[in-house]
Amino acid sequence: MRTLITNAYVLDMVGDVPNIDKKDILINDNIIEKVDKDIDKSVEVDERINAKNMLVMPGLINTHTHLAMSIFRGYKTDKKLMDWLENAIFPVEDKLKPEDIYWNSYLSCLEMIKSGTTTCNDMYFGMNKTVEAIRDTGLRAVVAWCIKDDSIKDKVEQTREYAKIYNNDENGKIKIYVSADAPHTCNPDTIKLCVDLAKELNTGLHIHLAETIDEETKIKSRYNKRSTEYLNDLEVFDVPVVLAHGIYVSDSDIEILKKIKGGISHNPISNCKLSSGICDVVKLRKNGINIGLGTDGIGSTTTMDMFEEMKTAAYLQKVNTMEPSSISAYDILKMATIEGAKVLGMENEIGTLEPGKKADMIFIKTDKLHMCPANDVCANLVYSSNGADVESVMIDGKVIMQNRKMLNLDEKQVMRQVKKIAKRLL
Amino acid sequence: MRTLITNAYVLDMVGDVPNIDKKDILINDNIIEKVDKDIDKSVEVDERINAKNMLVMPGLINTHTHLAMSIFRGYKTDKKLMDWLENAIFPVEDKLKPEDIYWNSYLSCLEMIKSGTTTCNDMYFGMNKTVEAIRDTGLRAVVAWCIKDDSIKDKVEQTREYAKIYNNDENGKIKIYVSADAPHTCNPDTIKLCVDLAKELNTGLHIHLAETIDEETKIKSRYNKRSTEYLNDLEVFDVPVVLAHGIYVSDSDIEILKKIKGGISHNPISNCKLSSGICDVVKLRKNGINIGLGTDGIGSTTTMDMFEEMKTAAYLQKVNTMEPSSISAYDILKMATIEGAKVLGMENEIGTLEPGKKADMIFIKTDKLHMCPANDVCANLVYSSNGADVESVMIDGKVIMQNRKMLNLDEKQVMRQVKKIAKRLL
Repeated sequence: MRTLITNAYVLDMVGDVPNIDKKDILINDNIIEKVDKDIDKSVEVDERINAKNMLVMPGLINTHTHLAMSIFRGYKTDKKLMDWLENAIFPVEDKLKPEDIYWNSYLSCLEMIKSGTTTCNDMYFGMNKTVEAIRDTGLRAVVAWCIKDDSIKDKVEQTREYAKIYNNDENGKIKIYVSADAPHTCNPDTIKLCVDLAKELNTGLHIHLAETIDEETKIKSRYNKRSTEYLNDLEVFDVPVVLAHGIYVSDSDIEILKKIKGGISHNPISNCKLSSGICDVVKLRKNGINIGLGTDGIGSTTTMDMFEEMKTAAYLQKVNTMEPSSISAYDILKMATIEGAKVLGMENEIGTLEPGKKADMIFIKTDKLHMCPANDVCANLVYSSNGADVESVMIDGKVIMQNRKMLNLDEKQVMRQVKKIAKRLL
Repeated sequence: MRTLITNAYVLDMVGDVPNIDKKDILINDNIIEKVDKDIDKSVEVDERINAKNMLVMPGLINTHTHLAMSIFRGYKTDKKLMDWLENAIFPVEDKLKPEDIYWNSYLSCLEMIKSGTTTCNDMYFGMNKTVEAIRDTGLRAVVAWCIKDDSIKDKVEQTREYAKIYNNDENGKIKIYVSADAPHTCNPDTIKLCVDLAKELNTGLHIHLAETIDEETKIKSRYNKRSTEYLNDLEVFDVPVVLAHGIYVSDSDIEILKKIKGGISHNPISNCKLSSGICDVVKLRKNGINIGLGTDGIGSTTTMDMFEEMKTAAYLQKVNTMEPSSISAYDILKMATIEGAKVLGMENEIGTLEPGKKADMIFIKTDKLHMCPANDVCANLVYSSNGADVESVMIDGKVIMQNRKMLNLDEKQVMRQVKKIAKRLL
């Protein structure tokens, strides 16, 4: 199956400066074959897409999610992280059934697709049902079962089993990671077990790191070291990692983080809403550490719209450094695409529009009031667009959303199901 | 002309806690006659609006704009305020023709309406053309000619003349204010002249205040006082004021500001993007000072979407205070409606949905993925909605936008015109 996209303004996200030009894109099955100005229009293809008035760019990569938390949208909001988790979330999570996990994850997946995300990196429990939702909605994803200090053996076994079943499933769209929850909720034995499992499965590790100052204080009093040092001493960084948040990292931590494979998932909205703090993204990037963007779960962020994360990331860095040029709109777009791909170790598969890469791309309508005039397309995308401007979405060569209509996916049904679950549990 | 709105979920913004209920709204010409659960459906009316699946709330109030700056969207972005103004903006502003001011303002007006704003407070030059654009698009607005130290006499005369022509024009929708630019750009005589003019015209004064630390340093070295003291000593606070930004205010400044009529326009996105700083809104509100929200000009903010300002205001306060409960979603909604009305001295006219108030309201579609489930409607509005969720807009009893289509207004034409101006000047 070959597809030709014509008349698009292509922002390929290749290179250090924005490259935006009117180009055609030729796709062979799920792979980009050619991105060029002068593709022969008479080439024989099965499908033609006219992308007039559309900007086409790589699909956004959400590097830290808890998809099944969508029922917690706005639930007992305005609390600090541990208070909110322990008094609002954990008691309800205990009652979630596998079917609930499926529908809650399904809603998060659709919300992501509708706002331009094509890949996510999830960590939760009941991962088999989340994988099913991901498969049924067509997303590309890395998924892990979040392991804490309880029922470790079971969860290790489940991760092993699901890795066997699902890893590289769906034409390679699904990958299985190992997840240890966080330094302050996992004792050294648990962490070591997770690292060993990641090595055994030849995969990476997804873990929260230094999200709040309280966690750092806890780790310090428990082990007399910082949490980044704690992980380093347990040889966590022998495997590729996705470190969620990474707010409280010192200069000596940065020396450690410079050498990791993978990177940090920056979640600016969650960090603000839970008053966790501001991650010094500018400094981390200057030190060559890969920084992707993530929404965290809907419970803490209320939205899965990566355009909102892009805006907030830019605003926070500019006001935190007191220097507007400290991060550019294009830097932010890179974090949401190719740098996010690097964080997930998928930079050879996704994150740019280049021959050989997977055909994951989004079509953004640009003939709108709030994008006029287009003095700076990247500035318009980051500072003025939002998820509702994403007109169509292609994942792995397949159009999943067209003119804001989900093809073959029922939005109404998932909303009915999630409302029912919320009514039962909240 | 009587209109009956049925089946709406009404968020009236009256009172200290959210009041959301299924109600009908009866409108007599431009005035809300009744908001009630049991309005007799057989009442004789000229127009019926079925607001099923809609949340109806007061139109948003944008308390600080420079409407004619829309051509500067994304233009030479990522600079600090004075550098950006002096090296990117001022040289081009000198070349703006009256017709340019009209079309640029027109685009900002449409963008505001499409994202749920029904009232704005503008400060720029060439105000007669901005007033025309406001009139032609149907917005409610306060407008002022921005006076600096040059050609003062002319501008005072123009303000006086336009106040005569336009004040209370358009069924009272247009009000004229006096504007002095800022303490650091207006010498004491200019400020005094503006205050006298405001008194003569029985109106208020719109001025920038303490937007950057550099301005404060300048004022300190020039007058050996803080800029709030400087204005106080010049008796500026004898008249109602809108103070844009108000970031660098001390505890002693707060004692002065407690007594003003009007209030502060908080512009969180502009303050971040230009690295101006974070306004301590929580502290100011605790001291009883009215705080509204504003977008500033498109040049600095890139967007006129007040939903984005609401989000950013919430995020900044929560991370600035390190306390998530320091400001609630409902507090933020109040800032965007009734508190904004107080800042403009219009709290008896707009800002809530109550009998006797002007019929300015927005219809928000709620049966969408990103609003499901609705555990907390205010949280969904502030943290997950955006301007694209505004389905219809009524200003002064007239529907201006219906199902996202502008009635009688040509979006394509204004985009063509603004593109042409941008091409000529940038």
